[in-house]
Amino acid sequence: MTPRATERRLIETIRRAPAGGPGVRVGIGDDCAVLEPDAGRLLLATTDLMIEDVHFRRRWAAPGDVGWKSLAVNLSDIAAMGGRPRWALIALACPAGVGLEDAEEFYSGLLALASEHGVAVVGGDTAASPAGWLVNVTLLGEAVAAPLLRSTARAGDVVAVTGALGRSAAGLALLESPAVPAGLAPAAGDDVRAAHLRPRPRVREGLWLGSAGGVTAMIDLSDGLATDLGHVAEESGVGARIALDRVPVGEGARAVAAALGRDALAWATGGGEDYELLLTCEPGAFRRLADGLAAATGTRLTAIGEVVVAAEGVRYTDASGREVAVTPGFEHFVTGRA
Amino acid sequence: MTPRATERRLIETIRRAPAGGPGVRVGIGDDCAVLEPDAGRLLLATTDLMIEDVHFRRRWAAPGDVGWKSLAVNLSDIAAMGGRPRWALIALACPAGVGLEDAEEFYSGLLALASEHGVAVVGGDTAASPAGWLVNVTLLGEAVAAPLLRSTARAGDVVAVTGALGRSAAGLALLESPAVPAGLAPAAGDDVRAAHLRPRPRVREGLWLGSAGGVTAMIDLSDGLATDLGHVAEESGVGARIALDRVPVGEGARAVAAALGRDALAWATGGGEDYELLLTCEPGAFRRLADGLAAATGTRLTAIGEVVVAAEGVRYTDASGREVAVTPGFEHFVTGRA
Repeated sequence: MTPRATERRLIETIRRAPAGGPGVRVGIGDDCAVLEPDAGRLLLATTDLMIEDVHFRRRWAAPGDVGWKSLAVNLSDIAAMGGRPRWALIALACPAGVGLEDAEEFYSGLLALASEHGVAVVGGDTAASPAGWLVNVTLLGEAVAAPLLRSTARAGDVVAVTGALGRSAAGLALLESPAVPAGLAPAAGDDVRAAHLRPRPRVREGLWLGSAGGVTAMIDLSDGLATDLGHVAEESGVGARIALDRVPVGEGARAVAAALGRDALAWATGGGEDYELLLTCEPGAFRRLADGLAAATGTRLTAIGEVVVAAEGVRYTDASGREVAVTPGFEHFVTGRA
Repeated sequence: MTPRATERRLIETIRRAPAGGPGVRVGIGDDCAVLEPDAGRLLLATTDLMIEDVHFRRRWAAPGDVGWKSLAVNLSDIAAMGGRPRWALIALACPAGVGLEDAEEFYSGLLALASEHGVAVVGGDTAASPAGWLVNVTLLGEAVAAPLLRSTARAGDVVAVTGALGRSAAGLALLESPAVPAGLAPAAGDDVRAAHLRPRPRVREGLWLGSAGGVTAMIDLSDGLATDLGHVAEESGVGARIALDRVPVGEGARAVAAALGRDALAWATGGGEDYELLLTCEPGAFRRLADGLAAATGTRLTAIGEVVVAAEGVRYTDASGREVAVTPGFEHFVTGRA
């Protein structure tokens, strides 16, 4: 197919996707989508790029995984504000050799997650790519309560995270590993690979936390605990003290780390793409929030430290109380141009 | 710089851009932008990719041109609905060797056009690119009257276009030409190169036409008259008869075509990226619309044909009334992967 023919077939594929939905006056097919926001609600907007050989490799990411994750990372941003996702715009460029089946798998993966969260695909663009796959998803949502920001943590607050960390970095290590290590339990491998390839953004958790009261700041863990906590500290003008022995590390991540001779805690603090939520809350609210979140969503909330004044910086201590250096370690692998 | 360091510096560059503005509660720097749409207005959303060696070449497009055009093509989509542009999200990926100056020039070009149209940059993403530059802009706007669609043209309507066509394709031909042809007036070359590199989307015209009454359908000319009229015909379930001798061809395009031995009318019908508006209107409304648009914006509106029933198809005739084959000819140049 000529690149143009490929583009036409991609557009046909997109247009076959279910596009209507609440608040969609005009979906894919006109110059713009025409949307009807709920009266009086604030609008949330976020956009993320996913680029082959920067964010994923086609060797281990199927087209459906790429579609799923390209939406998931944006859903996680909406979750981090406590918002409700509504409408997505999808831009996709594929190399000339990519067949229609791959494009359809991409959309199937994306739409599977979209339908879980009631998100309608309302627009997009397609193009030929001179190199690998590239995807840009823009997601619009709405606030159902006051949006939770990064910049509003206060000294004295509790620092907490949802779920367990390090799973995605463990999955990446396993996917990049030349062979699956002998003795690794299949379930552990499946857990961490799924965490990396098809992360489950904490949308329901974000919505619940956003309306529960007592949460003072929130961010999603896309770049890793150390980096993202650094963002909260910097934007809020505070420091933090984190007890590393309280950081919840995924069981699968521990198993993979043991099998590969790696450090699961380093993945939990420096690895990225867990898409869990990191929040700060009033100290008196933590127990109520943890119990309520578990009851409402089944998701664990773990206190890992406290917010301190900016002058004290962001510090990590081990079980004996000794300070430990934690480096914000997450870097996507990158194939630089020669 | 490592790719990560480049990404950080790009983010710093973006964050220095003026981000606030009407309706912006939270701009760049949090997980999502938080926006406050005007009560009761419909929201418009559009997204477009621009990829190096697919949509532009760095040999002749400066970073500022790429920034300008990446927003312009989206502004044109909002214009085609008769809407008002408000907020942009910018995703940019550059190869490792790109310096901060280039990124700054990119944003300067983009922001120059954004400020002309009162658009605030409220979010974005940056990444390393393993190949060339790639940009995705998502633009949000709002309807100030009922949005003008592609699907609502009716048999008997007049078909009309703003401005003059073929300028952008002429500019591309000149930019791709190994040498500027001798004897070409510098002003003609400047006109068509500017039309291609820094198109001026018809936002004011779209707003005026959207509120004037009598316009039945509208689309922007991004893929060329033949292709875009085909979209209107298909979506509206109609045909059209176009008089080629009435199609307004840019003077600069004529001069470049003469100098290069090319066909200016073919550029006007088959070339793309003019970003003029193509509309249909009630026959009795055309004169009022043309006079009113000229008075309000200085832009010419030219009747080029009429809408007919679907069974008659889309046909083009020359000055003597003979039918002429017009091929939807616009294809971006593409460097395919081997």
